[in-house]
Amino acid sequence: MNMEEDRMISMEDGAGGELMGQLISQEILPLFKDGQGEVSLEDLDDSAVLGDIVVSTDSHTVKPIFFSGGDIGSLAVCGTINDILALGGMPVGLTLAMVIPEGFRLSKLRRILKNAAEICNDNEVPVIAGDTKVVGRDDLDEPIVTTTGIGRRHQLLDSNFELAGGRKYRWLSDKNLNPGDKIIVTGTVGDHGMTILSEREGYGFEGEIKSDMAALLEVMDTALSVGGVASAKDPTRGGLANTLNEFASKSDLGIIVDEKEIPIKRWVASAGELLGIDPLNVGNEGKMVLAVHPTRAEKVLKALHETKDGRDAAIIGEVVEDVDGVVLKTEVGGHRVLEVPIGDPVPRIC
Amino acid sequence: MNMEEDRMISMEDGAGGELMGQLISQEILPLFKDGQGEVSLEDLDDSAVLGDIVVSTDSHTVKPIFFSGGDIGSLAVCGTINDILALGGMPVGLTLAMVIPEGFRLSKLRRILKNAAEICNDNEVPVIAGDTKVVGRDDLDEPIVTTTGIGRRHQLLDSNFELAGGRKYRWLSDKNLNPGDKIIVTGTVGDHGMTILSEREGYGFEGEIKSDMAALLEVMDTALSVGGVASAKDPTRGGLANTLNEFASKSDLGIIVDEKEIPIKRWVASAGELLGIDPLNVGNEGKMVLAVHPTRAEKVLKALHETKDGRDAAIIGEVVEDVDGVVLKTEVGGHRVLEVPIGDPVPRIC
Repeated sequence: MNMEEDRMISMEDGAGGELMGQLISQEILPLFKDGQGEVSLEDLDDSAVLGDIVVSTDSHTVKPIFFSGGDIGSLAVCGTINDILALGGMPVGLTLAMVIPEGFRLSKLRRILKNAAEICNDNEVPVIAGDTKVVGRDDLDEPIVTTTGIGRRHQLLDSNFELAGGRKYRWLSDKNLNPGDKIIVTGTVGDHGMTILSEREGYGFEGEIKSDMAALLEVMDTALSVGGVASAKDPTRGGLANTLNEFASKSDLGIIVDEKEIPIKRWVASAGELLGIDPLNVGNEGKMVLAVHPTRAEKVLKALHETKDGRDAAIIGEVVEDVDGVVLKTEVGGHRVLEVPIGDPVPRIC
Repeated sequence: MNMEEDRMISMEDGAGGELMGQLISQEILPLFKDGQGEVSLEDLDDSAVLGDIVVSTDSHTVKPIFFSGGDIGSLAVCGTINDILALGGMPVGLTLAMVIPEGFRLSKLRRILKNAAEICNDNEVPVIAGDTKVVGRDDLDEPIVTTTGIGRRHQLLDSNFELAGGRKYRWLSDKNLNPGDKIIVTGTVGDHGMTILSEREGYGFEGEIKSDMAALLEVMDTALSVGGVASAKDPTRGGLANTLNEFASKSDLGIIVDEKEIPIKRWVASAGELLGIDPLNVGNEGKMVLAVHPTRAEKVLKALHETKDGRDAAIIGEVVEDVDGVVLKTEVGGHRVLEVPIGDPVPRIC
């Protein structure tokens, strides 16, 4: 190998955007024999399918570890539950592995564990196995929490089949989109990423800032009970922009999004302007993006408005055949391509 | 909370010994509702059971990340495969989550991934989902690799039922021991921990040092095909001493071990003397400790001697009723209690 090839890993390699996609597809996938599952490593979904089981894993490195609306423990549990839900699974258990720096306060560890346990207990998703490692205080700055979720096929996926216009999907894979499907986002975007960044930078935004962190069991149960959902994805690293582009590229279709329909909180928009960061590019931790059959989209939307975490849901766009990638109809009437962020502009948000 | 309660986390809290057990039982278990599985979080096994699925997770922080006989990637895969096997599972898939410090060389990442993939591919255990995070170079010294394994019940566990003298175990839990069971260790002990420590301290031991790292599918297939295996456990953190004590305490029985029967490589014994560390207290990454029905123990041993990773297997002791804990019959004819190590004397060995 020449020196040029042996580059150094950069923050963007782990930011959920295009560079991370390259790293995974060029360096990781060629090495590992594929598991031949219906949704396997090669599909680059957040979760994978093994028979009737969905599995998803995430190492959480969020900094600060305590933030408005959550902390690394509850975030890890919510994030993994949502990844299982996004593929059409029902989470039935989690594993929790912690790496803790020596000298970390037991009181802080207790808070992290208590918050994680609250989400697990409230949602009846037990932690079934764990691991605890301690490393030197000079070797790691803050704890790392890795959660792996195990799910079974959601029982409502079966009833969903007929409602989705005759299409049959065993799982809500990213590649299931069809022309005409409506794109629903289940609430305001950018809250989590902007919270983390604002706290790091010391901006307060008059006390409004709060992560949207939530476990979306009710949201997904509700959407699936109406039916017509072809795909679902939680827009974490890389934000809504990344999620829509993954939908488009994996389904080999285009998506047209109406910018004015995208729900964004006022403080998030202000923070975005102040910090020069597009809220569509930053991570969410309590949202789903759904592709829904046109005959069911309004019904799904109405039902979501009755849920705790779906009150602000909106239909923001449509899947089309004659467009490449994701095109944003801007508020002033123009069009622009909504690109895959090179990397999440906010590192360590999850 | 008073200041005394709010102590700082120490290396021993993550070392697999008594302090880690206290941390888990006092701080973690009371918070989380139990999953009600046959082997759940409360059993404090390395793996847990969910219906007919075994799940196990481990964050790997080994340092140095490349060592004689392996590296952090292959170690993570072997360790997780062995944890699944130890409960009587057959590994069917793994997840792999990496946290990498910014500035880490791509060439090193490639080596780690290549070595991990080799173990996965050779043993037909696919990686089905992954995660990649990058954190600042000042925030983490070396990559952390977290693997979670998913397994199904080993098909040989069924044939095992009748052979085990009428006892029926759906899983090879730590608490299955019965008086009279023979304790088999599948090879020499202390190799891995002593390798890591020797490399860190710069001792060479004439080039003999090498970790025992191995995925033990053949070893477990072989033992289960003979039958009579009640429990199995891989003696990682805390070594053989910790494993035997867990067997004894969870089964509420005693174990008598004949010190002269414990297989130990010459260089491991020398390193132990030089460094003042008991090889029975340091971790292994390619060994199983089995409790086997007395009528099958010799047959299991003979079959293990024909396997690649079980050549040096030995019967080292017996389960008894009238003893508390683990008692070592020393080579000079005395007896001493083999205690649970307070913490592994070698941190970051896995």
